[in-house]
Amino acid sequence: MNYTSTFIPTLREVPADAVIASHRLMFRAGMIRKLANGLFAYLPLGLRSFRKVEQIIREEMDAIGSLEMKPPVMQPGELWKESGRWEAMGEGMLRAKNRLDNDFVVSPTAEEAFTAIVRDELSSYRQLPLSLYQINTKFRDEIRPRYGVMRGREFVMKDAYSWHHDEESLDETYRAMGRAYRKIFQRCGLTVIPVKADSGAMGGSGSEEFMVESEIGDNTLILCKKCEYAANVEKAACAPDFTPPSSPEEAKAAAANTHPYEKIDTPDVKTIDELCAFLKTDPKTFIKTLIYRAVNVELDLSTAPGCKNLDKKKPSPEAPAVYTEAFFAVAIRGDLDVNEAKLAALVKASEVELAADGDVVRLTNAPVGFAGPVGLDTLPVIVDHTVTALNDAVTGALEKDAHYRHVAYGRDFTGWMTGDLRTVKAGDRCPVCGGELYEKKGNELGHIFKLGYKYTRSMNVSYLDENGKSQIPVMGSYGIGVDRTLSSIIEEHHDEAGIVWPVSVAPYHVIIIPIKYSGKVRAVADILVTELEAAGIEVLLDNRDERPGVKFNDADLTGIPWRVVIGDKGLSQPKPQVELKSRREKESHMIEPSTAVAELANMIHEELVDKSLFLKEF
Amino acid sequence: MNYTSTFIPTLREVPADAVIASHRLMFRAGMIRKLANGLFAYLPLGLRSFRKVEQIIREEMDAIGSLEMKPPVMQPGELWKESGRWEAMGEGMLRAKNRLDNDFVVSPTAEEAFTAIVRDELSSYRQLPLSLYQINTKFRDEIRPRYGVMRGREFVMKDAYSWHHDEESLDETYRAMGRAYRKIFQRCGLTVIPVKADSGAMGGSGSEEFMVESEIGDNTLILCKKCEYAANVEKAACAPDFTPPSSPEEAKAAAANTHPYEKIDTPDVKTIDELCAFLKTDPKTFIKTLIYRAVNVELDLSTAPGCKNLDKKKPSPEAPAVYTEAFFAVAIRGDLDVNEAKLAALVKASEVELAADGDVVRLTNAPVGFAGPVGLDTLPVIVDHTVTALNDAVTGALEKDAHYRHVAYGRDFTGWMTGDLRTVKAGDRCPVCGGELYEKKGNELGHIFKLGYKYTRSMNVSYLDENGKSQIPVMGSYGIGVDRTLSSIIEEHHDEAGIVWPVSVAPYHVIIIPIKYSGKVRAVADILVTELEAAGIEVLLDNRDERPGVKFNDADLTGIPWRVVIGDKGLSQPKPQVELKSRREKESHMIEPSTAVAELANMIHEELVDKSLFLKEF
Repeated sequence: MNYTSTFIPTLREVPADAVIASHRLMFRAGMIRKLANGLFAYLPLGLRSFRKVEQIIREEMDAIGSLEMKPPVMQPGELWKESGRWEAMGEGMLRAKNRLDNDFVVSPTAEEAFTAIVRDELSSYRQLPLSLYQINTKFRDEIRPRYGVMRGREFVMKDAYSWHHDEESLDETYRAMGRAYRKIFQRCGLTVIPVKADSGAMGGSGSEEFMVESEIGDNTLILCKKCEYAANVEKAACAPDFTPPSSPEEAKAAAANTHPYEKIDTPDVKTIDELCAFLKTDPKTFIKTLIYRAVNVELDLSTAPGCKNLDKKKPSPEAPAVYTEAFFAVAIRGDLDVNEAKLAALVKASEVELAADGDVVRLTNAPVGFAGPVGLDTLPVIVDHTVTALNDAVTGALEKDAHYRHVAYGRDFTGWMTGDLRTVKAGDRCPVCGGELYEKKGNELGHIFKLGYKYTRSMNVSYLDENGKSQIPVMGSYGIGVDRTLSSIIEEHHDEAGIVWPVSVAPYHVIIIPIKYSGKVRAVADILVTELEAAGIEVLLDNRDERPGVKFNDADLTGIPWRVVIGDKGLSQPKPQVELKSRREKESHMIEPSTAVAELANMIHEELVDKSLFLKEF
Repeated sequence: MNYTSTFIPTLREVPADAVIASHRLMFRAGMIRKLANGLFAYLPLGLRSFRKVEQIIREEMDAIGSLEMKPPVMQPGELWKESGRWEAMGEGMLRAKNRLDNDFVVSPTAEEAFTAIVRDELSSYRQLPLSLYQINTKFRDEIRPRYGVMRGREFVMKDAYSWHHDEESLDETYRAMGRAYRKIFQRCGLTVIPVKADSGAMGGSGSEEFMVESEIGDNTLILCKKCEYAANVEKAACAPDFTPPSSPEEAKAAAANTHPYEKIDTPDVKTIDELCAFLKTDPKTFIKTLIYRAVNVELDLSTAPGCKNLDKKKPSPEAPAVYTEAFFAVAIRGDLDVNEAKLAALVKASEVELAADGDVVRLTNAPVGFAGPVGLDTLPVIVDHTVTALNDAVTGALEKDAHYRHVAYGRDFTGWMTGDLRTVKAGDRCPVCGGELYEKKGNELGHIFKLGYKYTRSMNVSYLDENGKSQIPVMGSYGIGVDRTLSSIIEEHHDEAGIVWPVSVAPYHVIIIPIKYSGKVRAVADILVTELEAAGIEVLLDNRDERPGVKFNDADLTGIPWRVVIGDKGLSQPKPQVELKSRREKESHMIEPSTAVAELANMIHEELVDKSLFLKEF
């Protein structure tokens, strides 16, 4: 392709709103242009790399037997009402009404559409497992779209869905997807951090996120310095820095030598720090008690304290019954923070938040700041594991300016349930190997997820098993953001001068720069193009009438992996030579034109093959 | 690909709403499923053919130097307000508002988006000509979507746009597009009828539609039995069946021997037929006069009768001023019909319709049925060419129960303007060669169009010419409907048993049917698959445990061009044989397996190459 025949509007300036490298470089290299907030157009150069990422994903999906199809981008609102997500998706899902008052959804994901199609075709267990995918336009109405295509409103996602007759079959496809994802990212030259949702602690896994490190990432990752442990902070566990009792009875026995608990006056003491100073003690001996309000709680509370009068209701006919609102007290060691995502998961709530002061006063019958688990029977108390090891602790006494000391779990209180609710942080120990944990910010590129029966139940999907009995299939879903993958590649592969593409996703493999496109130089350039293209290499010939410096800068900016410079000086050597340079390296070397063709073809094919075939199995 | 590893839910039944062959067959062959009215999902088999059509289009666009890009499907409403089409597009364009009250449009076409991008990048004449395209999702809210993907709400369109420094350059790209379109349709195995908008009559062409014959087509085409003349009835011309005078003066002279016109009583005579019976004359000697109401008239009416008080206004700041409403009288020969599309084009109106009775009475000062051009000065009279040749005609006398006879054009009236307004019909004569014209129904698959300055003016696009002077580029647009092209291929290539794919767009080239997939038959089938695939042939192996009849039926239904049947009987011959059959032919023949591979590879590659490379130039 001749440079003058394409449309690569490179720029020196950077748009004011481009704060990350990929946004800046995609814009400057003429890969994308902004049409409106969060809406981007891929220009020809950008589209070439974009299609390569798509194609890598397609090949790896096909390789594990997932079948590509193409549902519409505009989906009937009825389907979303059926699954219950018409309400649940909130304002992030863009809706439209047409002239006939039909509801449409601009697809943010496609569980419903795929399930509706499979529902009509599925009759026998012999059709299972079935795995289908699309690579198609999606829309999510980000309130603050930014970072270019890293977080746009419209984007392209590969989303796959699978249906199975049992969990084992689901597990097999789920693992195949995990392997395919690792291959995809490796072929794209990306270093991903696979984050299992419940890695370590609970064994097995129903969800795995594929993260890349990013300063602007919206996830906090907890990683181990010694082993491969990686978790989203929302779910990260850590090795206990205490010795938990095996039961409340054992805890009670451990408190045998503890003085009976007693009330102490703590006038004007409000914070844990003040209390520690006042009592000359450590936060680790304190039981912090926080009151939370939870919304749409699925957990059965029929035996929980203070919950007798709560009403259950169904948000939709197919959805499980939930408590619209419930309150919980959480008791945790004084030096730790409660992880609200863990709490929400534990009580199966759609959302939890700290209770309003008025609710705290009403439920604890005391001013804010004096809650404690001893004698608290107006709501369910959830005891974090750390508290079960405390047998001589300080805690609020449920009245103004008063605390208890010498409080022991198992003896003085037990709570309604126990669980892991602490927020793991840098410096905590790895739950797998005990190594030191550290934090990173990450962006999610992909997610594989065992959906279970959510959609197949709510949308009435069934098949007949070997015995002719009607069964509901179990489902998985698997997504990768194409735009975000592309921009993450640039985040990982760039320098001050521009992009440094891995060969697999480079818009062109080789750029040929004639110092001046005329005479002998032109003749050699044209021959090189012809021969490289005959060898299956994608070549951009910079035939512009520009200064060499401009051409070099644009070549660096657009990041094409190999550069061949042709000038009169090199060609007038006894053995004519051209300059060959890898975008990854500073140094170039002179080489005979015919050797250049063979060498480039060799190196490029090797790198392409290397990434796709000889990939180590995970 | 093994049949059991894919997802091809073929059906015997036909959905009740499927009235055309392609809809029935795409549904029955498991190519598509309906998600809602006008919204279809392409299943894996359908998507394979769909992608091949896309790829043929892509290759031919690339071959003429058009550059692919990818703007968003969801477009900012602001752009459409800028061009003035936010209002003009009406309810067929689906709009959405997000949580921030931003307006979005689900792209029905993309002149605005492409122009907005080019506007920001265009600075110099050296960047022109520039041609960009996309193959992307579109949405048009058809009131009655039907005929499957032939007329769906969501569809994929290839739309290209080009910008030029002058008309000559536009003409060059326009002609290249025309050639590319012919190649595309020929490679798809389609017989298209290219219909020039103003072919013949006016010379040159600013618009060409690519039609396929279709019983459910929404266009009427006028074709010549002798030459290649083809026109949309909305614009079709015909050779005059009269001798037109060169001027009103000549017409007047021709009426020298005509009796002066005189009023006659025509009581209770309302229709032309009644009048002809009453006067014992022929409709061809009658001047029919119809009153039309036209909306948004751009034509200058400042000198037209009865239009003095009309007000002009601008629908948007950038749009030209128009008369919101104007009335015209059209005088045409009594045996002919007025073509409203021609009338609208002549007076540059967005719409014309017959005037309401009240308006007719008010403007002609007579009951409905007595209008005539003689003495009619309350509105502009447009005289069809046919009337200019009448020098002894009958027409309404602008009063109840009265007509004039011996009326002559040029002597008794001339009208405000003359034009070609007749609706051409079967039996009329070709304007090019004089051959007999006939009618066909057609569906539009593609359209190439010289847009002129509409968007570049309204959206303020400019560049600097050789002399540093700011200029506005001229634009063309070029569309092809991918879904409609695919379904039209099936319309043209099917029989009672199913689809009969051209090799170029077949989902697979060869289907291999083992009578029973086991033992030696299985071994031979597997070898054939391997060897055919090694030769670049796409193979579907029907490894299902089904009766041969079921497999044959599905093979015919899905229309795969070549079928290889392997059975024990053939394999147990002294020279083992398999059965080879073309989907196009009734007869099969036995052939040795190794010969089958060579023969198939040969025939298939030849057909693919034939369609793409050795295509005659148009």
